[in-house]
Amino acid sequence: MKISLDCIPCFIRQALDAARLVTPDEEMHRALLRDVLKWSSEIDLNQPPIILAQRIHRHIRKITGIEDPYFTAKSRFNDLAMNMIPELSDKISNSSDPLMLAVRLAIAGNVIDMGVNSTITENDIRLSVNRSLTECFQANEQEFRNAVSQAGSILYLADNAGEIVFDRLLIEQLPVDKVTLAVRGAPILNDATRTDALTAGLDKMVRIIDNGSDAPGTLLNDCSEEFLRHYHDADMIIAKGQGNYESLSDDEAREIFFLFKVKCPVISDHIGYPLGNYILARSHESQTVLKAS
Amino acid sequence: MKISLDCIPCFIRQALDAARLVTPDEEMHRALLRDVLKWSSEIDLNQPPIILAQRIHRHIRKITGIEDPYFTAKSRFNDLAMNMIPELSDKISNSSDPLMLAVRLAIAGNVIDMGVNSTITENDIRLSVNRSLTECFQANEQEFRNAVSQAGSILYLADNAGEIVFDRLLIEQLPVDKVTLAVRGAPILNDATRTDALTAGLDKMVRIIDNGSDAPGTLLNDCSEEFLRHYHDADMIIAKGQGNYESLSDDEAREIFFLFKVKCPVISDHIGYPLGNYILARSHESQTVLKAS
Repeated sequence: MKISLDCIPCFIRQALDAARLVTPDEEMHRALLRDVLKWSSEIDLNQPPIILAQRIHRHIRKITGIEDPYFTAKSRFNDLAMNMIPELSDKISNSSDPLMLAVRLAIAGNVIDMGVNSTITENDIRLSVNRSLTECFQANEQEFRNAVSQAGSILYLADNAGEIVFDRLLIEQLPVDKVTLAVRGAPILNDATRTDALTAGLDKMVRIIDNGSDAPGTLLNDCSEEFLRHYHDADMIIAKGQGNYESLSDDEAREIFFLFKVKCPVISDHIGYPLGNYILARSHESQTVLKAS
Repeated sequence: MKISLDCIPCFIRQALDAARLVTPDEEMHRALLRDVLKWSSEIDLNQPPIILAQRIHRHIRKITGIEDPYFTAKSRFNDLAMNMIPELSDKISNSSDPLMLAVRLAIAGNVIDMGVNSTITENDIRLSVNRSLTECFQANEQEFRNAVSQAGSILYLADNAGEIVFDRLLIEQLPVDKVTLAVRGAPILNDATRTDALTAGLDKMVRIIDNGSDAPGTLLNDCSEEFLRHYHDADMIIAKGQGNYESLSDDEAREIFFLFKVKCPVISDHIGYPLGNYILARSHESQTVLKAS
């Protein structure tokens, strides 16, 4: 997926939000904004949108000298989500369709996205969970069930901190001995890194790798060789979040199941479903094959 | 009022909206966006925000070769508003407070602002009129009534096409023989020019001048000498819309009554009232003097 002109004003706003979240220094806000405006005026639009986010957040880390500006926020989201685990686990256990409920809850957790909304609250997360059963769900359920049951190995690409705790609920419904979980290779926004996977207790359940990159998605040419081996060898790939969709939806080499909530008009146009919809979509698949359930 | 960092992403979005409205040529959209990003990265922030809008729309007119890209939209808004005049005139005639009802309707017309919302519809305008009596109104009514009754001359600075028809309803409640109406000196966005004043029939009622400028507000150093004479000599100045507020609220030389709807968070912060509020505020006046009514 390529940068749309609509991404540009959105990234400019995101850069300003992020700068303000990370430092109260207004001179730094001005300097960052000027730099981002200049890069944006020169950017090659034939790249995935997250290229610009990667560059913005590298620059914020550089000019502030803060290696992981979202560390506190990520910890808070992990704690919030961990507190919800017992209740949600019970719901899944008592469900007539534990796998699909776990999918819905994993997508509900996708609301924890500080790129889209820098001021997300505990209330937003609870609301998202409460609504997860009634949200419009565009899903190719049967293909997903078949792939899960047939796969000898599953690579699960995580998205954000906090959200990764909700991913655990879904991973528990998969054949865990076949699952490898991949997180980002370095701090970027509130995306999940190895620290967050450990906080969610996922190291006791599955193998954890990182992708070697600090992009808020999966830019294959920026990923480590180890990650690429897993990426090309896995029987099934599950990719969470818009960032992974933006960066992998055009990859002809791999079939991927994307799980996310549509939170951006450009992605809504690209995938052909309205804002707010829950998506479980297989790549290389015509939209008409997807059925609303 | 100076450019806030928050104005920048908003102007980038406005530039893109405007380019798309004016031409379907995507190469032009890209070229315009790149230029606006470059200027924005270099802009002196100690200027009123409308400087950037003036520059964007000059550039759109230049690269498209269209002198008045909003001509059709302006005509449509004038026609819509003219059709509402008989009904609204009746309401004013039957009101116990015709002046304040006319003020509210003039502010209701301020919703016709294609800088803030490029896709405004007839329904939006009707909704705005219907809600005008119940919107939260921050007004220094008595000061305004006193100034109107004491002024030997009143300069009324118009804002947008369509809206200028609603201004006519208010002007009819003023001592019309003392009123001079000023419009923009050249096409800019959907702002009212002399053509729109004539369409609204205002030439039969008051003297009409233009300000000699193509800014979407009143940049005094860009206005004609004739306009400046009126500006400095009038006993009372009434200025419609956010653009006039942005450009004149810091002018120490003149007391001005500003009439507008708060449609932008930066202006909301500056004036100290929430988004959506109707404002009738005298400049140089502490907010605490304004009373909610």
